[in-house]
Amino acid sequence: MRRLMILAVALLAVTVAMAQEAIWGRQAVVSPEIHDDNTVTFRMRAPKAIKVEVTGDFFGVDAPRIAELKENQEGVWEYTTPEPLPSELYSYTFIVDGVRMNDPSNVMMIRDVASVASVFIVPGDPGDLYSVNDVPHGTVARRWYDSPTLKEQRRITVYTPPGYENSKQTYPVFYLLHGSGGDEEAWISLGRTAQIMDNLIAQGKAKPMIVVMPNGHTQNAAAPGESSRDYLPAMGGGQRQAVASMEDSFGDIIAFVESNYRVKKNRANRAIAGLSMGGMHSSAISAQYTKTFDYVGIFSAPPISTMRAGSNEEAVKRAEEFVNKLKTQQANGFKLYWIACGNTDFLYQGVIDSMKKMDEIGFNYTYRESGEGHIWKNWRIYLSEFAPMLFQ
Amino acid sequence: MRRLMILAVALLAVTVAMAQEAIWGRQAVVSPEIHDDNTVTFRMRAPKAIKVEVTGDFFGVDAPRIAELKENQEGVWEYTTPEPLPSELYSYTFIVDGVRMNDPSNVMMIRDVASVASVFIVPGDPGDLYSVNDVPHGTVARRWYDSPTLKEQRRITVYTPPGYENSKQTYPVFYLLHGSGGDEEAWISLGRTAQIMDNLIAQGKAKPMIVVMPNGHTQNAAAPGESSRDYLPAMGGGQRQAVASMEDSFGDIIAFVESNYRVKKNRANRAIAGLSMGGMHSSAISAQYTKTFDYVGIFSAPPISTMRAGSNEEAVKRAEEFVNKLKTQQANGFKLYWIACGNTDFLYQGVIDSMKKMDEIGFNYTYRESGEGHIWKNWRIYLSEFAPMLFQ
Repeated sequence: MRRLMILAVALLAVTVAMAQEAIWGRQAVVSPEIHDDNTVTFRMRAPKAIKVEVTGDFFGVDAPRIAELKENQEGVWEYTTPEPLPSELYSYTFIVDGVRMNDPSNVMMIRDVASVASVFIVPGDPGDLYSVNDVPHGTVARRWYDSPTLKEQRRITVYTPPGYENSKQTYPVFYLLHGSGGDEEAWISLGRTAQIMDNLIAQGKAKPMIVVMPNGHTQNAAAPGESSRDYLPAMGGGQRQAVASMEDSFGDIIAFVESNYRVKKNRANRAIAGLSMGGMHSSAISAQYTKTFDYVGIFSAPPISTMRAGSNEEAVKRAEEFVNKLKTQQANGFKLYWIACGNTDFLYQGVIDSMKKMDEIGFNYTYRESGEGHIWKNWRIYLSEFAPMLFQ
Repeated sequence: MRRLMILAVALLAVTVAMAQEAIWGRQAVVSPEIHDDNTVTFRMRAPKAIKVEVTGDFFGVDAPRIAELKENQEGVWEYTTPEPLPSELYSYTFIVDGVRMNDPSNVMMIRDVASVASVFIVPGDPGDLYSVNDVPHGTVARRWYDSPTLKEQRRITVYTPPGYENSKQTYPVFYLLHGSGGDEEAWISLGRTAQIMDNLIAQGKAKPMIVVMPNGHTQNAAAPGESSRDYLPAMGGGQRQAVASMEDSFGDIIAFVESNYRVKKNRANRAIAGLSMGGMHSSAISAQYTKTFDYVGIFSAPPISTMRAGSNEEAVKRAEEFVNKLKTQQANGFKLYWIACGNTDFLYQGVIDSMKKMDEIGFNYTYRESGEGHIWKNWRIYLSEFAPMLFQ
């Protein structure tokens, strides 16, 4: 049978390629091309264009973050980075006569809030950790859970580690929360959570664990396009009125996970972390659900969220209320309270001010400061460093 | 806690929006806009462009499949369809001064083979069947299974129906195969399988069933970007040498499903169908694995695949060999052998010729002819019609 099918398939491939609508036509241009020395060439066919530029986060923070491509005789524009790029997952777009567009030769694209950018990974450290390697892979499921508090079915992304389905053992659970521009897809797509966890587990650096990525916008049931209540993606996740907060409805998520997965149901086997808004959720939820989480991670957010609101009376009063909760949290005990922030993050001062308050009450946190700011590069690094510390 | 967090989140949303890199900037343009009468407006900001066009499958097959947008004073180009569009899932791209690009205001994009197009759904029939509605939702999992025949772990997409996780009942299994340009993502993304199954099940039109969508290119372990053996997407799925054929390795998939899911393990509860190359796989596999499938669907492919190879001797000989297998399949019995093809499909004549051969041996098939050709519009329709006939 094999030979017959290979023949027939080859024939079909050729014929279908001819039969394709023009809209699906393959661009005979390779872009981006990552060379052996980690320089990268971007290419774009645009014979009628006057100017083609590329912009992206692969340019150093201090460099002009845009470069012009040069046109060859076939109308293909090209730009090669003058230096090798450090290993990383990068995003970029082309600008063709002033219009931003994705690279038509690169099907790898990731949405961030309301925009979609072309992406590529330069190998090495940490890029290899964000890549699919030849290691056992976990399962990523998009499911729906019932939230009695929010009175609806809500979408959730769940990573189960390699071997979960064919074992009888119970696992610890790591709740991983997105930021204001994200949803239940953010940590899987931009965060590369499945790849990072697969690789860390394969290297023996992280314990096998279940990673639960809910949608932190309680006014939405799911990511844009994934629910019947559709909306345009935006920072803050749309403008509907939420029935209840992420904090008050979080018990529904724990209840769902603990009745649907083989998990260890105690504080020593629960972790919660999040970035930006999700970091504020994590500090609030870990304080509100007492004796529930032994591991807390606050990425790029002030643990005392009102420390950002400046000196207004209401904010100060609420900060004091929250400090009282932190005192209880400290008294109840936990194993790790990990705060991470980039030193150019626009929330940096709020983080510093929060920690000053926490020092005053002897709150037992660990602080990790990185370079740069409020970007996914940092959040992938924080995840890669935080996950290995869990459940040890 | 709620008020505090809402305040803080609102603050964060504003601040982060300002802090965003320019690359993530939101286009303040709504496109596409589907009006109440189902006319659709496309918009694109391109103040420096000389010409902006839109092309896509929403143009009738007989019309010129391209239209020019008109520029307003703000540099926003606009085109509204002169007539309401029939309900459907449509794909389109803009052409800006000769360069194809996706709609930057629309985050809904789907990859087909090596291209990514912007998409939208016009409501009605059948668009509503392809949309996320307020009905119970199944789970979509991306998993990896072991293939001893192909000597590797391979990626697979599995839809389990609503309630699967919280029941003890066993379910029938529908194996659904993609075409030469596809992979284990194709039926979920372009095929809208999860939405179609959720909706058909909610309407009581289809039995709750598990839908298994493997990767039919045995030279690849997974979709582009999803395996360590990376490759550029292409018709035929890359150029590596396969260890074994889809047919010969299909037993590994059945074994995986039947040992990992609560399924009914008999022919009355197994169906297989596929489009194009996947249709040829389905006819070959259902003939090769005798008494395994009571339901077979061949979408847009000749059931006797060599009927396409014309009159060369080898093809005729192989066709005769396959007809002998069909005789055995007919003698073994089955409940439904459903052949569907569009009347402008480039494989149409091969389908007709196959059925002539099958008539000669009294093979008991059902034929469904639709309009148009080798396109996802037809495959979504075939899935919507085939699934309700299964396991009844």
